Amino acid sequence: MQLTRYTDYSLRILMYLGLNAERRCTIAEIAETFGVSRNHLMKLTHQLGLMGYVTTLRGKNGGLTLGLPPGKIPIGDLVRKTESNFHLVECFNRERNRCPIAGACVLTTVLDDALTAFFSVLDGYTLADLLKPSGALRHQLGIS
Amino acid sequence: MQLTRYTDYSLRILMYLGLNAERRCTIAEIAETFGVSRNHLMKLTHQLGLMGYVTTLRGKNGGLTLGLPPGKIPIGDLVRKTESNFHLVECFNRERNRCPIAGACVLTTVLDDALTAFFSVLDGYTLADLLKPSGALRHQLGIS
Repeated sequence: MQLTRYTDYSLRILMYLGLNAERRCTIAEIAETFGVSRNHLMKLTHQLGLMGYVTTLRGKNGGLTLGLPPGKIPIGDLVRKTESNFHLVECFNRERNRCPIAGACVLTTVLDDALTAFFSVLDGYTLADLLKPSGALRHQLGIS
Repeated sequence: MQLTRYTDYSLRILMYLGLNAERRCTIAEIAETFGVSRNHLMKLTHQLGLMGYVTTLRGKNGGLTLGLPPGKIPIGDLVRKTESNFHLVECFNRERNRCPIAGACVLTTVLDDALTAFFSVLDGYTLADLLKPSGALRHQLGIS
């Protein structure tokens, strides 16, 4: 059971932008900081831009900033958007399901309840909460 | 966010054995019922046997039965054992982590709490609960 890299890196990008709120950041520096390819981050920031989480200013003094205040970015919402699907088991995907007991089986309900509980916890946090240990985080990122 | 096929098929095998408690079942019939390869199910039932969930009797009248009463198989325990890992994001795997903010970052705690909430729900159910709509399940499986 894992989240996608898309979710993992999206959280890192938003945290990085939140910790550098006083300036515009570049994809190059974020790529170097986290050891992730620039191309991969370009695709991710484009998607995060479409979701409203990131604002990109083009040009000489351009760069990336958060598109919303950190307190307006609930972690639950972000993960719901960045995960490609929540098909915990085959029958969650009605189009592809081939399991013959789907419909009568209560496992779907049990797993659905578990997923709801998972997101209930994430819904209790925003990006602002993740940025709270800002001194330690900025130190580990080498931000002066 | 998905569970592995190993978990998905393990749950189906145990449900099938629980619904056919009055007799020994074969890998061939379970494979046919769920449209899964026999080889794949052989590996799975071997693993489930090592975990104590399945008992295999060899020989002419041999076959598979549940290794424990359904009420003694908590779904949370089963999923914890059948999932290969719970590395929701990279830093959950300390050996492979390369994220520079690990240690100061509270995301790990947030996701850990969410995972605990997920399992708290699963811990409330046993295989016996999944077998409760036995009439409907047996009907869909063609068990007379």
